Amino acid sequence: MKSQISNVLSDFFFEYETQRQVLVRNRRVGVVCRLIQLGVLAYIIGWVFIYEKGYQSADTAISSVYTKMKGVGYTNVAGVEEIWDVADYVFPSQGDASFVVMTNFIITQGQTMGKCPELPGKDNCTTNGDCEEGRFKRTGNGVCLNQTHTCEVLAWCPVEDDQTIPDPPRLMSAENYTLFIKNSVTFPLFGVTRSNLVEGIDGKYISTCLYHPDTNPLCPIMKLGDIIKFSGFDFTTIAKVGGAIGILVDWTCNLDRSLRHCKPVYTFHGLYGNPGETDTARASVGYNFRYAKHYMEDKKPKRTLIKVFGIRIDIIVQSLARKFDIIPTLTAIGSGVGIFGVATVVCDLVLLYILPKREFYKNMKYKYTETQQRDVDSEAGITEKEAAKG
Amino acid sequence: MKSQISNVLSDFFFEYETQRQVLVRNRRVGVVCRLIQLGVLAYIIGWVFIYEKGYQSADTAISSVYTKMKGVGYTNVAGVEEIWDVADYVFPSQGDASFVVMTNFIITQGQTMGKCPELPGKDNCTTNGDCEEGRFKRTGNGVCLNQTHTCEVLAWCPVEDDQTIPDPPRLMSAENYTLFIKNSVTFPLFGVTRSNLVEGIDGKYISTCLYHPDTNPLCPIMKLGDIIKFSGFDFTTIAKVGGAIGILVDWTCNLDRSLRHCKPVYTFHGLYGNPGETDTARASVGYNFRYAKHYMEDKKPKRTLIKVFGIRIDIIVQSLARKFDIIPTLTAIGSGVGIFGVATVVCDLVLLYILPKREFYKNMKYKYTETQQRDVDSEAGITEKEAAKG
Amino acid sequence: MKSQISNVLSDFFFEYETQRQVLVRNRRVGVVCRLIQLGVLAYIIGWVFIYEKGYQSADTAISSVYTKMKGVGYTNVAGVEEIWDVADYVFPSQGDASFVVMTNFIITQGQTMGKCPELPGKDNCTTNGDCEEGRFKRTGNGVCLNQTHTCEVLAWCPVEDDQTIPDPPRLMSAENYTLFIKNSVTFPLFGVTRSNLVEGIDGKYISTCLYHPDTNPLCPIMKLGDIIKFSGFDFTTIAKVGGAIGILVDWTCNLDRSLRHCKPVYTFHGLYGNPGETDTARASVGYNFRYAKHYMEDKKPKRTLIKVFGIRIDIIVQSLARKFDIIPTLTAIGSGVGIFGVATVVCDLVLLYILPKREFYKNMKYKYTETQQRDVDSEAGITEKEAAKG
Repeated sequence: MKSQISNVLSDFFFEYETQRQVLVRNRRVGVVCRLIQLGVLAYIIGWVFIYEKGYQSADTAISSVYTKMKGVGYTNVAGVEEIWDVADYVFPSQGDASFVVMTNFIITQGQTMGKCPELPGKDNCTTNGDCEEGRFKRTGNGVCLNQTHTCEVLAWCPVEDDQTIPDPPRLMSAENYTLFIKNSVTFPLFGVTRSNLVEGIDGKYISTCLYHPDTNPLCPIMKLGDIIKFSGFDFTTIAKVGGAIGILVDWTCNLDRSLRHCKPVYTFHGLYGNPGETDTARASVGYNFRYAKHYMEDKKPKRTLIKVFGIRIDIIVQSLARKFDIIPTLTAIGSGVGIFGVATVVCDLVLLYILPKREFYKNMKYKYTETQQRDVDSEAGITEKEAAKG
Repeated sequence: MKSQISNVLSDFFFEYETQRQVLVRNRRVGVVCRLIQLGVLAYIIGWVFIYEKGYQSADTAISSVYTKMKGVGYTNVAGVEEIWDVADYVFPSQGDASFVVMTNFIITQGQTMGKCPELPGKDNCTTNGDCEEGRFKRTGNGVCLNQTHTCEVLAWCPVEDDQTIPDPPRLMSAENYTLFIKNSVTFPLFGVTRSNLVEGIDGKYISTCLYHPDTNPLCPIMKLGDIIKFSGFDFTTIAKVGGAIGILVDWTCNLDRSLRHCKPVYTFHGLYGNPGETDTARASVGYNFRYAKHYMEDKKPKRTLIKVFGIRIDIIVQSLARKFDIIPTLTAIGSGVGIFGVATVVCDLVLLYILPKREFYKNMKYKYTETQQRDVDSEAGITEKEAAKG
Repeated sequence: MKSQISNVLSDFFFEYETQRQVLVRNRRVGVVCRLIQLGVLAYIIGWVFIYEKGYQSADTAISSVYTKMKGVGYTNVAGVEEIWDVADYVFPSQGDASFVVMTNFIITQGQTMGKCPELPGKDNCTTNGDCEEGRFKRTGNGVCLNQTHTCEVLAWCPVEDDQTIPDPPRLMSAENYTLFIKNSVTFPLFGVTRSNLVEGIDGKYISTCLYHPDTNPLCPIMKLGDIIKFSGFDFTTIAKVGGAIGILVDWTCNLDRSLRHCKPVYTFHGLYGNPGETDTARASVGYNFRYAKHYMEDKKPKRTLIKVFGIRIDIIVQSLARKFDIIPTLTAIGSGVGIFGVATVVCDLVLLYILPKREFYKNMKYKYTETQQRDVDSEAGITEKEAAKG
């Protein structure tokens, strides 16, 4: 028994089987098949390996973004000069990746809780009966006021009048604000961390540079007006009614090369379509929200309501790092060998079904067991000698 | 030398090798093997290509979300009527993808910095010795106050009493607030941008529609009460103590079809487990944070502290676009050919080790070089003629 | 015609072709080739299947994070004692995944809109001519003030003086604040939802536990001082000028095992480089923003400006779940068979081009059709008998 196993083992280790092949010496077949095979080889090497970099594994990054706006706005409404600094015009203030820069506003000062008439044009009425009681949208109380011919509502009074948007926008100076972006990405699969303050972008450079796609593509400081311009919008339009702009920070890195080449690329686009695209472009325009500053006056709570029109900026980090890895390499090779097999199948079809001498090649390629089939139950029907010849 | 190379080249190009095969004409073997092969083929075509769409490459989107709540809340606490509008009940106000809608609150008005007793029930004491000095959680100062039998602390006074949560929740009207979601997704690999305001969802439709999974599945305006209902929770419970609800916007797009079919699907679920799941459901219930409005009164800084109970809504965008791509197609084919090889191996095992006529088939399949092995050093031991026969 | 088709079909189903192979009984060749084949097999099984788990498909999670800080800060500036609670020191207040904990601040109280001199050291002047009019950064008005020798500007007055940062940081007590993290992840591909409050982390445990990587790795409550320490920074430094720390919650789950083993792992690191890394470490240090509390005093709008230095904490959820899936399994097997084919090719090269008996093996492996080539147009040049022998 033991010797039998060792026999099987030695048989296994000292033997090697390889396929028997027919070498067809035919110019036409040879050239066609070699070209098919070379095509497949070229595809595997050229496309999978060189173009698609199939020998690399890919990873996306986890990232963190910190932003800081700088600049001072100035308004002069009916002779009242006012200054707007970062604490006033950025929402939220703590430097998130997504924030709003106020460019226009409708301010309703000194609102108190109470009863007052609705705006003319809304909830018009002639008698008290026209004013439904207890509705939720501006909770009316069923009284029609004569002076304004509108219903009386319980609300923060006076009611905000947002029917006309200031034009030109109040804070056109926003065009000159600057945005500083600090972004770090970590590719956990490769253990690589990069910051957008890459080699050469030091404190001295930052203090003077201004982003421009051609001349200063790595400067992390951008003028708000430039951001709008690069995304294809008109600053005055967007400043008036607000808008949503995405700043895409693209980290596409080949980590087989030096880490120095792993640099961010900034692109700018409307978040809900760009100006060129007719049907969706308008969707990017128009961004507003309401915001209240509460205070006490004469022991009564009051608030200043600000309807903020602004530029919502989303810093979107997109990342893809690639590095040589043995697994995808071997998977690509293995898969390539498989596709090579397909080439062989195609050539065989040509050889066996299309060529005029197909019958000859069929006989060369195949050995039939048909004679055997006739006397199917007699296993001794073929001599060992005869089989050994085959 | 040169002619030698050209010889090798012409040999290479004018030759074609193909495997020699045994054609086993045996019903049992044939049927079994063909079924195995057809099974593998069916798997590759049916599963990999049709079901899993292995001929497509996939990409996830970068997305941007903007939200806007609408609706007015009304409270009547001890005869004091108050109105709560968007600027009062949404945190943060600027329309983020993640925000909180206040549905209940405990308000502590007119707090000033000073010394006052702790709440009864906390830090009870009988002598000054019971009150440790200078601890951080409510910084005590080592004095036990007789009236309340609690320690004196330095804090914003009076200390907030949050031991009883208002029931029913103060802002039950929140049920009728509406949420408008604006969401755009960009699949960078395919250069496709889509907004949830798809074809047919125009300004006119939006002004009247209300989301319902069956009748209006594409309307981007949802009632807060519906959101809670669709996620399986009870509005009154969640409004009282707060809760965390996720709105999943699912973009699963087959870009081989018309872009019109790339539409969002909205689903709703508790962020920390759904009501049906016993052990984690409670985790989704209960969400609160504290928020202060600061003001000056009689030159002294004061604040109104609000403990906000609310519904935290996270808009989560999930996206997967697929499009025909030659690389995954060929990889799948190559891999399929490989699996086909496995089928052949299985059939060979059957043929060579299980069938009664296995010895016969072995002889048909294999040619042995054993005779050669005996006189291993005489390379001329086999005549060219004999070998050519094989 | 019909019988012809059924003939072809029966031929197809009752036949089975298998490759003819040469069994080379040669010790050297056998051992070398078997070792190559075993190596490939070991690679496929060991590396692809066991190490890289190629039989599983992978999915990343959609996640939601809710945070809550606890703790009270205490400051004593020139005898004025003040208490800072959560509503005062966390920005934003609603419990986002990314927030700032104030640890130091420069407060400028009672600013009003008006004209006042710039800070000494900035915009120094001797005559009015030195002060350019109407510039945006602090909008000057062209007047040089004698007392300070600086330009007069229109601004929130008095102008903030942030030239010296308080040292030691005002809110050193921040070290003792605690952070509670609630995180849920959903793997949509596998329909699995997990919360970081895993089995055994119940209300009772949470009320007493404090995170420590060794003793309490699953406790979701962390001391702020510990977070800084674990990420390798010095609390005093970071508390003074601010800093950005990432808390990575890593969900790497093998869903073929019990769900109980799918647990989060918390790690801490500087967002813009860690202390050990010389060139980028400083980038993680320094985080500040300005924040204003507006109020009315004597009918005039005023504000208290706070320059907040703080610790920005980003909770970053990283997830990867894997589960057995038939598709990647078969793809890996198919690809493995392909690589196996490569091993055969290598062995054949050895056999046919390197071994001394290569000519013999070539003759065993290949059958030539060369004789046929000579009389290329006579297809009957080979008798059926002769071919059948081959």
